[in-house]
Amino acid sequence: MFKRLSGAWDARRILMERCRPVLRSEIIALEASAGRVLFERAVSSVDLPAFNRAAMDGFAVRSGDTHGAGPMAPVYLENAKKMRTGMAVPEGFDAVVMLEDAVLRGNVLEVTAEVHPYKNISRTGEDIRQGDVVLNEGHRIRPPDIALLAALGFEEVAVYSRPRVAVIPTGGELVPRGTRTLRPGEAYETNGLMARLYIEKWGGTAIQSDIVPDDPSQIRTAIESNRDKDMIVIIGGTSVGEKDYAPRVLADAGELFVHGVRVQPGKPTAFGAVEGKPVVCLPGYPVAALSDLYLFVRPALKKIAHLRDDQPKVTARLAGKVASKAGYLSIVRVALKDGDAVPIMVSGAGILSSVARADGFVIVPEEREGMEAGETVEVHIFE
Amino acid sequence: MFKRLSGAWDARRILMERCRPVLRSEIIALEASAGRVLFERAVSSVDLPAFNRAAMDGFAVRSGDTHGAGPMAPVYLENAKKMRTGMAVPEGFDAVVMLEDAVLRGNVLEVTAEVHPYKNISRTGEDIRQGDVVLNEGHRIRPPDIALLAALGFEEVAVYSRPRVAVIPTGGELVPRGTRTLRPGEAYETNGLMARLYIEKWGGTAIQSDIVPDDPSQIRTAIESNRDKDMIVIIGGTSVGEKDYAPRVLADAGELFVHGVRVQPGKPTAFGAVEGKPVVCLPGYPVAALSDLYLFVRPALKKIAHLRDDQPKVTARLAGKVASKAGYLSIVRVALKDGDAVPIMVSGAGILSSVARADGFVIVPEEREGMEAGETVEVHIFE
Repeated sequence: MFKRLSGAWDARRILMERCRPVLRSEIIALEASAGRVLFERAVSSVDLPAFNRAAMDGFAVRSGDTHGAGPMAPVYLENAKKMRTGMAVPEGFDAVVMLEDAVLRGNVLEVTAEVHPYKNISRTGEDIRQGDVVLNEGHRIRPPDIALLAALGFEEVAVYSRPRVAVIPTGGELVPRGTRTLRPGEAYETNGLMARLYIEKWGGTAIQSDIVPDDPSQIRTAIESNRDKDMIVIIGGTSVGEKDYAPRVLADAGELFVHGVRVQPGKPTAFGAVEGKPVVCLPGYPVAALSDLYLFVRPALKKIAHLRDDQPKVTARLAGKVASKAGYLSIVRVALKDGDAVPIMVSGAGILSSVARADGFVIVPEEREGMEAGETVEVHIFE
Repeated sequence: MFKRLSGAWDARRILMERCRPVLRSEIIALEASAGRVLFERAVSSVDLPAFNRAAMDGFAVRSGDTHGAGPMAPVYLENAKKMRTGMAVPEGFDAVVMLEDAVLRGNVLEVTAEVHPYKNISRTGEDIRQGDVVLNEGHRIRPPDIALLAALGFEEVAVYSRPRVAVIPTGGELVPRGTRTLRPGEAYETNGLMARLYIEKWGGTAIQSDIVPDDPSQIRTAIESNRDKDMIVIIGGTSVGEKDYAPRVLADAGELFVHGVRVQPGKPTAFGAVEGKPVVCLPGYPVAALSDLYLFVRPALKKIAHLRDDQPKVTARLAGKVASKAGYLSIVRVALKDGDAVPIMVSGAGILSSVARADGFVIVPEEREGMEAGETVEVHIFE
């Protein structure tokens, strides 16, 4: 039996409080910076445009020379320069007359509209001035930001380092993938792989350990050898059985804040810390591990990575009734069909095949006992 | 002047009709397959579980031997086997008695609950049977799918090849990034970079050409040398000025279906085809190019890549009035603040700095003339 079960949001809050955004940084090529987070604000060293730029096709003129010009009162200019959009307006000119308002006859331009100073010109520094902060520290870099920085002449950029996350699969029954065929009682290691792929997707760098057997001293060694990481994720052996060592080892090696969470699936979840680094113990049942990855590891990692926890969601109509246990937060897998969220009813957290059919999940709050068909729900999409 | 402006959705439909999902495939390592699309259905060659698996900690028994057992009528068994969750239940046993219902005294197990056949056992093939289709052709592979396939012993997987997209930046004013400082009238090439990064993000492989000057024959050569691609994206020179060659060249080299779209920004947009391959001409103004990438290139590419056009969106309250031109679909950049979508008011499609402050955009339908503060809007998030 668990000594004390924590509420899911309480447990998450306790975990999040222990997560500190990374302070390490690195300088990388601008082109490789999509998805990364700026370590320092980006300040422009140039004006953009760097010159008075024609904003229209037409003719560069001195605006004063067009004074009083109109369809019935053309003005004739001898030194106008033909301009295409984007060209630099030469020194001495301060406006562009549009093509519709001018006719060139030999050397002489007939202008039939008056233009004010800087008409049809993007002035030097109009978009960005030298010294302007164009992006703030903490900004998540997207392709148009890269284009902007490239336009300003940036070739590199300082970003926060990706959080380094240790992934430690445990379990005497586990066999490394691709090594040999299985004997009865064995299984390929897959939870560590799933965790690693999500951690990389969510902005971290995963460092996966070899499989650790159900042995307290080896689990402790695995934890302690990863004290340099920003987070440690241990998978398996997290319940209260005889050989569920991970939480006990964590309590010995550091602190154990949470053991047992009122969430379905995922009750045998534990959180702790070793030398200030958060440690997450995920159950070995694949569906529970997946659920915990979304509920706990994702927000924790995003915080450490300076990223927003912007989980993709869609609103849908629940197509069938779902049951849940009062007092427990429940994660219900659903398939999306024509705007409906169709619950995938299966028992057992071991059933990964149900995830293959699921597009995402719905969270049933702890105070509810199930939800009714027809309710509007938010579906968190499996990335 | 454009000869005939197309409506934005009409233009998009015409483009989409010309896009064909790729038929090429490749075999890749399972671990590298996240985000890819299955070329053929995945069929299991094994049962999962591959053996009768204990679903609880307890003791393996013959269910028949527990007949009539209860707290007041214990049954004593001599050959029960201790089981941990996940272990293989040995031959000859067909149920597991939970720890709470049994006490081991020396060699003798005292059982105080009757168990039916297969109680607390996950039977061979209960999750997946040999020959079952676990994932269908066209399925987008996610980390839990990889875990599932790994559990079944898959090490490789056949996926559709990523669409190959040519990106051709044009414009005599453009200078390759990182080569030299700019002279008046010049700009670094950044639209091609932005397009390339988005194409890679959206599931394609971008092949970026060198900058092509404003020269019809060189533009034609650039198009024709990319006939082997699944899509061609040309950037710049798409309007109706003297040196806007791209649409004319496209008409000569193949077909031009659309030139000029009622969308703001992005009017100078053109679509065509060369030897059946879709060609998209994007305006050189960065904000218009970005807008077109989302409105046209993204859905086209997703279709070619066998992917759903699952653009991330959030619902928000428009915090300020926005203006738009009736008959034109308008793309309004907004910043998200506490659930509000705050319009970023700037004139000019050249102003990339406005995108740095935008979290996404709102689409104002063509039949509307602006939108009012307080309206509920869908914000498409810039990825």
